[in-house]
Amino acid sequence: MTTSRLEAFSDGVLAIIITIMVLDLKVPVGDGLLSLKPYIPKFLSYFFSFIYVGIYWNNHHHLFHTIKKVNGKILWSNLHLLFWLSFLPVATGWMGENYNSTLPTAVYGFVLLMSSVAFMIIEKVAIKTEGKDSDIAKTVTSGSKEIISTIGYILGILLAFILPFLGIFIYYVIALLWLVPDKRIEKYYN
Amino acid sequence: MTTSRLEAFSDGVLAIIITIMVLDLKVPVGDGLLSLKPYIPKFLSYFFSFIYVGIYWNNHHHLFHTIKKVNGKILWSNLHLLFWLSFLPVATGWMGENYNSTLPTAVYGFVLLMSSVAFMIIEKVAIKTEGKDSDIAKTVTSGSKEIISTIGYILGILLAFILPFLGIFIYYVIALLWLVPDKRIEKYYN
Amino acid sequence: MTTSRLEAFSDGVLAIIITIMVLDLKVPVGDGLLSLKPYIPKFLSYFFSFIYVGIYWNNHHHLFHTIKKVNGKILWSNLHLLFWLSFLPVATGWMGENYNSTLPTAVYGFVLLMSSVAFMIIEKVAIKTEGKDSDIAKTVTSGSKEIISTIGYILGILLAFILPFLGIFIYYVIALLWLVPDKRIEKYYN
Amino acid sequence: MTTSRLEAFSDGVLAIIITIMVLDLKVPVGDGLLSLKPYIPKFLSYFFSFIYVGIYWNNHHHLFHTIKKVNGKILWSNLHLLFWLSFLPVATGWMGENYNSTLPTAVYGFVLLMSSVAFMIIEKVAIKTEGKDSDIAKTVTSGSKEIISTIGYILGILLAFILPFLGIFIYYVIALLWLVPDKRIEKYYN
Repeated sequence: MTTSRLEAFSDGVLAIIITIMVLDLKVPVGDGLLSLKPYIPKFLSYFFSFIYVGIYWNNHHHLFHTIKKVNGKILWSNLHLLFWLSFLPVATGWMGENYNSTLPTAVYGFVLLMSSVAFMIIEKVAIKTEGKDSDIAKTVTSGSKEIISTIGYILGILLAFILPFLGIFIYYVIALLWLVPDKRIEKYYN
Repeated sequence: MTTSRLEAFSDGVLAIIITIMVLDLKVPVGDGLLSLKPYIPKFLSYFFSFIYVGIYWNNHHHLFHTIKKVNGKILWSNLHLLFWLSFLPVATGWMGENYNSTLPTAVYGFVLLMSSVAFMIIEKVAIKTEGKDSDIAKTVTSGSKEIISTIGYILGILLAFILPFLGIFIYYVIALLWLVPDKRIEKYYN
Repeated sequence: MTTSRLEAFSDGVLAIIITIMVLDLKVPVGDGLLSLKPYIPKFLSYFFSFIYVGIYWNNHHHLFHTIKKVNGKILWSNLHLLFWLSFLPVATGWMGENYNSTLPTAVYGFVLLMSSVAFMIIEKVAIKTEGKDSDIAKTVTSGSKEIISTIGYILGILLAFILPFLGIFIYYVIALLWLVPDKRIEKYYN
Repeated sequence: MTTSRLEAFSDGVLAIIITIMVLDLKVPVGDGLLSLKPYIPKFLSYFFSFIYVGIYWNNHHHLFHTIKKVNGKILWSNLHLLFWLSFLPVATGWMGENYNSTLPTAVYGFVLLMSSVAFMIIEKVAIKTEGKDSDIAKTVTSGSKEIISTIGYILGILLAFILPFLGIFIYYVIALLWLVPDKRIEKYYN
């Protein structure tokens, strides 16, 4: 079984997630400048969630480029990742409408944390499937970016209960940190 | 005619179904913990429907891996499956908003039952098209899982009129039962 | 330029159209049997529009199977078809909510008529592009089904102003008529 | 890394954008002719936005046909284009509901301007990646159409503050101007 259909399906889901998020920026009521004001936090939420989906799409692209064999475990750990990412539109909309408030900030961070965990699970499953001498085992090593962002998400969730604004700020910094795609894998292949 | 475009179209529809379901978990009103409370049954409904779509995607993936020829009958029996699966988001949303009530539970079970029947029809049509010596005829045999889940769906629909909660429980157990993909076909090909 | 990306894009649009229509069957309010009653005309509308999209997907599949070269004219006449088909969800929802009333029935018929015209334009453009000796010119001949359904749509639109119910009935009969895929092309290739 | 998955993902996003726009033409309330009246500006907005997405899809199709290598920069400049295009449904809906009013017209023009800038960035990045002797460098030269439409968008945004109607008119003229696909690239390849 090849990865092509799994990639096509994941592309479809990610394309829908990234496009559907914008629907929460509903058509504004009225046509004055004030009608755009509540849009600023929503726009920011949307902007960074768009970056996050872009990051996941990029890294997914890189990861499955190195995976050769697909089995039931890979299929389900991939669906597990899509499950958590599918909450991003709702979490984004909620945080955008309730800026600087505890629960939406914590939930948003939790969705990011679980997506990140899900991605790492796929890596682990793939390494286990393909063996220690496979390309995937050589290129994927628990990198510092993964550790930093995991700590960042947990910190953001905790900060949501004291200074939500700071939690959000951390999520955004991590997004920017990941904008640089996984050089390790890219280097290996070019 | 090859299966590639049929698979791409089905992937598209399944990707939309799985992603659109989450939209019924609309952006919560308010930002307190109480605003998340009505989410619990909705979340459960979503979770298991996500698993169901995942199961269908996996099994569809496996099935069309063994189908060589596509004709009008296969195309339409595939569309018939997608027709029933397309009701899953509405049925999921309805059951999630009216937990433990008769009609939504029965309708949800009916959608599951018809999807399952539609899948079996594709298998039958494919076997008829490709002949008794084809790969598909050898790998697809009316398995116990199919029989158990058909009985389970009917039982769930009936229970919806007495103890809806138990009906829902049965649907969830069947979902977990199917989490293991169709070993028969996977074995045959690896 | 090959047809693959055009097919992929069309598959995406058709997959979204077919899945989005079901969203107008919004989650019912209440959980009683009466809450399903207004669903009957909606369900019928949805059912036949699903068949129509299925028909267009099938025929599109067959048509582009015979088209070898894609140029700007083919691209735009294909987008023209998708344009009219994209109105199907709105027209279906409108007709489903106002059963047996003039304007929705006429608009629905108009969308069907224009989609059908758009499909014939693609055929003409393709034949002009590929020449009179091409596969496409040999397989596509203005068939009786096309003529019957064009007359049927126009009749349905006119009937909408007198007996909308009969107009709807005609649309449904045409749908059933098309359920049989284009044998001419299928025969030619198998 | 090939362009196939990037194209598939972009096709997905563009297919969703083009199909989702029509959802803002919500199911009309009532069934009389008057219920269609507020539809006229909405329909026009939708019609021209559909053409714009069609143009971008066509040009994207042509551009990535000449791009051989995909790296992180291409991936992100492509996501940057999709980001701006993803605002088209909201901007279209807003302009359709507030015809001939300043802010929606200016925002719509801004989305078009940024999308156009984003497309040019992809071209620049691709030329830088593939070198001055590549196909892409030979076919893409800052054409007059790009310059005219950039000036047109800026003019439209400015006019939005004086005569919105004229601004909208300019956007529509540019759309029609682009309906002819990029002959330079098409010529080069056929």
